[in-house]
Amino acid sequence: MLSYFKQTIERLKSENRYREFLNLSRICGEFPCAIDNNSGRKIVVWCSNDYLGMGQNEETINEAIKALKTYGIGAGGTRNISGTSSHVVELEKNLAQLHSKEAALAFVSGYVANDATIQALSSIIPDLIIFSDAKNHASIISGIRNSRLTKHVFRHNDMAHLEELLAIHEKTQPKLIIFESVYSMDGDFGKALEIVALAKKYHALTYVDEVHGVGLYGKNGAGLCEDLGVADKIDIIQGTLAKAFGAIGGYIAAKKEIIDAVRLVASGFIFTTALPPPIAAALTFNVKYLQQDDSKRKKMHENVVLLKEKLQQAQIKIIENKSHIIAIRIGDAVRAKEVSKRLLDEFDIYVQHINFPTVERGDERLRITVTPFHNESMIDDLVKALKLIL
Amino acid sequence: MLSYFKQTIERLKSENRYREFLNLSRICGEFPCAIDNNSGRKIVVWCSNDYLGMGQNEETINEAIKALKTYGIGAGGTRNISGTSSHVVELEKNLAQLHSKEAALAFVSGYVANDATIQALSSIIPDLIIFSDAKNHASIISGIRNSRLTKHVFRHNDMAHLEELLAIHEKTQPKLIIFESVYSMDGDFGKALEIVALAKKYHALTYVDEVHGVGLYGKNGAGLCEDLGVADKIDIIQGTLAKAFGAIGGYIAAKKEIIDAVRLVASGFIFTTALPPPIAAALTFNVKYLQQDDSKRKKMHENVVLLKEKLQQAQIKIIENKSHIIAIRIGDAVRAKEVSKRLLDEFDIYVQHINFPTVERGDERLRITVTPFHNESMIDDLVKALKLIL
Repeated sequence: MLSYFKQTIERLKSENRYREFLNLSRICGEFPCAIDNNSGRKIVVWCSNDYLGMGQNEETINEAIKALKTYGIGAGGTRNISGTSSHVVELEKNLAQLHSKEAALAFVSGYVANDATIQALSSIIPDLIIFSDAKNHASIISGIRNSRLTKHVFRHNDMAHLEELLAIHEKTQPKLIIFESVYSMDGDFGKALEIVALAKKYHALTYVDEVHGVGLYGKNGAGLCEDLGVADKIDIIQGTLAKAFGAIGGYIAAKKEIIDAVRLVASGFIFTTALPPPIAAALTFNVKYLQQDDSKRKKMHENVVLLKEKLQQAQIKIIENKSHIIAIRIGDAVRAKEVSKRLLDEFDIYVQHINFPTVERGDERLRITVTPFHNESMIDDLVKALKLIL
Repeated sequence: MLSYFKQTIERLKSENRYREFLNLSRICGEFPCAIDNNSGRKIVVWCSNDYLGMGQNEETINEAIKALKTYGIGAGGTRNISGTSSHVVELEKNLAQLHSKEAALAFVSGYVANDATIQALSSIIPDLIIFSDAKNHASIISGIRNSRLTKHVFRHNDMAHLEELLAIHEKTQPKLIIFESVYSMDGDFGKALEIVALAKKYHALTYVDEVHGVGLYGKNGAGLCEDLGVADKIDIIQGTLAKAFGAIGGYIAAKKEIIDAVRLVASGFIFTTALPPPIAAALTFNVKYLQQDDSKRKKMHENVVLLKEKLQQAQIKIIENKSHIIAIRIGDAVRAKEVSKRLLDEFDIYVQHINFPTVERGDERLRITVTPFHNESMIDDLVKALKLIL
């Protein structure tokens, strides 16, 4: 039956969807540089989701080392069976605090946080109807699909369409609107204010994916909904621990009854080994750090403005948005790959091309993430290289 | 709508299924001891899945520290977008080697390895029919359910029933038999030899969950199927990195086309940040260590025999099996909880009681895991305490 697997590979190759992973060694202290292990050359990474370089922050690493020496590496079990460390409890406390919610629950990834929570909702509210933005992330789609709940997909950010769908159902019918604060591929913002208003009007719960918002937006780095002043109107805030917070994992924050019920029924939570104590210790440090100190966040946004300006001066068209995500539409899988390859081969610049299924076919692109650690000369090099190749 | 969440919590409380997690601090160098953060007292942990204490192995911790200092904490991205470190590549190489397979793929957890792989199979072999043992783990059940593939559940370890179900379908119909090598709750072995023979007869693929086998069985610690000499007849071996290997994560090992196809289509793999370099470095060390040195594995099995003997002498009935898992059936959720609580309060011994949904209702139990680091006096203390309470 190996032929099935071969056919899948061949089909993906023929559709230019065969992914080759770039083998990298990040260099602690030289963020955003890394060694490309194929060529052995030092490259500048322009597509890391370690948005603020917190994964290489010296104090954070020291926290992790301290925890490693004191408690060891793994949690040793699921949360229920000997795996609940003081570190993961402390992390959840800090995440709740960050979002001004009563409680939080940590998962092994942001994907699992969405997938497991949404599936859990189906056993907590069996007749829940879900209203999901068309551009929601694969993990949300997976959670909804696997929950088997009735769902309506509203056109991306189309509030009239959302309201039309909400209005179909009785007011007493339980409803949940799921959206993202920052859509990861186009970098446009979700309509949090409008969604919260519609949720109130139609008695719906709200669920926001702040994966590309936490650490980066808001006075405390609690995300875009904090920045917009609507975080307290959102019932469930989902975030990641693997991007701005620099390590691995995901979470939800909400009222204590919501967290407790999800904790008790979510299969993807119950049957999974807890996050390692050193990881949880490092994350707690980073969450607090970004809450107290906004210098990295500010510098990143300054660099975003700078890069966008320089791209504009060079007449390189980007997808317009107000966020930190800079996307250049290529619109062709082969060409996107080729541009990415030339940047790497000729300029030691790594910008991953993004193909289906991460974006739609025909919507292939380069997705650039600029961090507080990219300096002006790196920015100039990138713009020059893009100008030459595009 | 908070009432729905409250009702779920109340319902679980009324069914004695409300879980309270014990907040622990493991103590590096004093495995299997930990601090119970409620009482502040030092306790002996008898339910860790860090089966061999590798999560606190000194050299392993040093490997993690070295990687932390050199590369930082997080991977910085998904595998496709700047997250493939040399460490995770090295880990996968070693896992493939361990199982004498061509390739391996690391996931963020064992749960996700099963859930994502089985779902991926549905897009690789759309008309695949799954034959699943009735006692397979929640993660396998989730993967099958979410794959929407046609499935047959055969009675636990009942080969006649499995054959009966296999015989229903044409020989040309793609089939997959999924089972576990060591069933985690009863500790009985899956029937690998018989299943492999049936798979050959009916042209089925085989998939084994070796989560409670890897590191613990076989000459190289490749699991029970290695020990039985049938690993080469298994198409997909799934394992965990969070138990005997002491950290976090899961994986599959198989022929390179199988791994490549799963890598390319599994949503739970594609859209998830890679394992952190220090975790992958520590894991690579542990996989190699347990491959080369069987002293911890041997000592654990000696301790299992010793504890089983002493329990028998004390006339404490355990669920009979040939594995390292020692389960004492209590058969009642309240009583199971009470026994566990008394062990902790009166004897500083931590054995988690296992309730539904981890085991069936009426099948509640204590599940004891003995490690190479439990000494004879600890074993005697446990037996004495159990004798008094049960």
